[in-house]
Amino acid sequence: MNQFNFCSPTEFVFGKERELETGVYVKKYGGTNVLLHYGGGSAERSGLLGRIRDSLREQNISFTELGGVKPNPRDTLVYEGISLCRSKQIDMILAVGGGSVIDSSKAIAMGVPYAGDFWDFYAGGTRIEQALPVGTVLTIAAAGSEGSGDSVITREADGLKRGTGSDLIRPRFSVLNPALTCTLPAYQTACGATDIMAHVFERYFTNTREVEITDRLCEAVLMTMIHETPRVIAQPDLYEARANIMWAGTVAHTNIVGVGREQDWNSHGIEHELSALYDCAHGAGLAVIMPAWMEFVFRHDVMRFAQAAVRIWGCSMDFANPERTALEGIARFRKFLHEIGMPINFAELGANEADIPKLVEKFGIGDGRTGGFVHLSAADIAEIYRIAAHASL
Amino acid sequence: MNQFNFCSPTEFVFGKERELETGVYVKKYGGTNVLLHYGGGSAERSGLLGRIRDSLREQNISFTELGGVKPNPRDTLVYEGISLCRSKQIDMILAVGGGSVIDSSKAIAMGVPYAGDFWDFYAGGTRIEQALPVGTVLTIAAAGSEGSGDSVITREADGLKRGTGSDLIRPRFSVLNPALTCTLPAYQTACGATDIMAHVFERYFTNTREVEITDRLCEAVLMTMIHETPRVIAQPDLYEARANIMWAGTVAHTNIVGVGREQDWNSHGIEHELSALYDCAHGAGLAVIMPAWMEFVFRHDVMRFAQAAVRIWGCSMDFANPERTALEGIARFRKFLHEIGMPINFAELGANEADIPKLVEKFGIGDGRTGGFVHLSAADIAEIYRIAAHASL
Repeated sequence: MNQFNFCSPTEFVFGKERELETGVYVKKYGGTNVLLHYGGGSAERSGLLGRIRDSLREQNISFTELGGVKPNPRDTLVYEGISLCRSKQIDMILAVGGGSVIDSSKAIAMGVPYAGDFWDFYAGGTRIEQALPVGTVLTIAAAGSEGSGDSVITREADGLKRGTGSDLIRPRFSVLNPALTCTLPAYQTACGATDIMAHVFERYFTNTREVEITDRLCEAVLMTMIHETPRVIAQPDLYEARANIMWAGTVAHTNIVGVGREQDWNSHGIEHELSALYDCAHGAGLAVIMPAWMEFVFRHDVMRFAQAAVRIWGCSMDFANPERTALEGIARFRKFLHEIGMPINFAELGANEADIPKLVEKFGIGDGRTGGFVHLSAADIAEIYRIAAHASL
Repeated sequence: MNQFNFCSPTEFVFGKERELETGVYVKKYGGTNVLLHYGGGSAERSGLLGRIRDSLREQNISFTELGGVKPNPRDTLVYEGISLCRSKQIDMILAVGGGSVIDSSKAIAMGVPYAGDFWDFYAGGTRIEQALPVGTVLTIAAAGSEGSGDSVITREADGLKRGTGSDLIRPRFSVLNPALTCTLPAYQTACGATDIMAHVFERYFTNTREVEITDRLCEAVLMTMIHETPRVIAQPDLYEARANIMWAGTVAHTNIVGVGREQDWNSHGIEHELSALYDCAHGAGLAVIMPAWMEFVFRHDVMRFAQAAVRIWGCSMDFANPERTALEGIARFRKFLHEIGMPINFAELGANEADIPKLVEKFGIGDGRTGGFVHLSAADIAEIYRIAAHASL
């Protein structure tokens, strides 16, 4: 196991109707004048925003609202949020939504006390030194942003999608009410589940040796997702299954299952270009990319992929031909994604093979190579896009 | 999944030689004048205390020392620590040792700002409202106290052993250097491993339905312990195996694997009377009690015990006779404990069957029943002690 520091100080407030206590937690973590940040109309129509406004008023907390966060959240709204917070002297950002709203909130939180352009943190090189506290009320199990120190933002002008991270932007508290996810459409549920599984696989495929505890914890989250996701696709209001998925999604991304080991994250990077170009759901893009990435890299460590096939997917080990087992595991993953309603190739996603050179160029690796499990060149990335373009069951 | 709040704000500082940074973390979390609290001579002889003193001096941190913590830590030393901290105006307790030292440190930390007798918190009913910050440098993977809000203390006058808990006594930081555990004798290593496994089993056997994510996480920790413990018993200086065990021990007890579900903890309570009466190691007592408890209660939920047997111990499911599978899992657990050098009955532990009435009386259940997976009467507890007294492979 490699050296690491791990600190996940977020207070998770889990269970039915816990959003009614939002004001209590805002107050507990020092919020007196908050930015209520959210997305489209569903949080309003469902009555969730109304309940949260009431909860804030009960605690005499002032608030200013900024809605309109879109999937693949944009820098333009972040700039608007930063200005608004400065003019209103906001002291906490309260995100009500999924990963996009939370990531936008984190960007605003780090931008408010920073004299320069907040994009500096995403462009790389500039370290986050300060941020307003963020609290969240989660409405979809997916990004894990409710418990992570990560944020991904898309620059509207050129579609550049970039991430940043710091323990300073981990939420102070996150309200997790699984019942809020019972009304999600199947497609969004499946996109979220895919994202959760991808967060674990990005950590699972590692060159660090003898990491049994984090291997096993990763497998635990993945087996839970394999068990519970088809259940909620078939019956959306199964509270207990939604609850298991929600906690799995948080555990998947606080990094408690990924500490002390090299991680990959190339599939996320390769996917980001798809969702930036086509504005598709991140989870749907991952469903297309990740099995293709696996097929491209698995020979780098056949036994690790065979372990995944046996332990996670319940495949029988082919001791005479471990490659066969490794490939069977990948095929099972793609079949699972198809069965929960995810696209598995470019056509199903609405992507165009002719765009591959553009996607590779945007990825911006040039003559270099990525880091990760297998260091990828621009040609490798093009090949992964090609495998993804043509994938079938 | 039941409603829960979960907050584990401890910063874990993991890896080789990380104890050299102790002073940095004391400073980071506000310590300027600390109580350096430890046990016997091994931390001194190994040079660990010397390195920590140097690290504190490097950061200009004043310190006062209080050694002498014994296994099953006593109230008497806690009182001494509280007086010392008050007279020296100590602002942080730094525990260097295992669960006993950390639990003693937590007791001192809550006692210093409390006007009454610190034992009030352990006697039950008095809520912890304030505590000095605690930091730890862990020397054995076992109690999980480095990441938990729990503490257990023994009252010397009458041998009463009681626990208390609050998020306020979770350590601010814990330095985890697995290399420090490479020199532990096999017996202590095995006691620690047993304690870690018991912490998970206490959470695993639950009446809460459909808790797949925490079931799977519990199984992940247990499978890791089953894989790694025999390796370090055979070869004590296997750093990677020690590292997996150390992180498993912490994950086992922050409660991230136990949230949202009823837990048991009767085995711990029943064991505490053994270690209080015979001053044996807690882990050794658990090795004798926990399989006996399992044999006594398994019919309450045969399928849960069968699940444990199949998923954790790799038993084949006997679909015609699930009880047989359940019992096979328990037998595998006891055999595992024997193989790592743990006692499995009263004779091997040095306990006396004739003391059972005294042990039951000390447990203090009277005419009532415990809570937990199966609510136990005094007669049930006596029967569990009897099963434990006579256990064999």
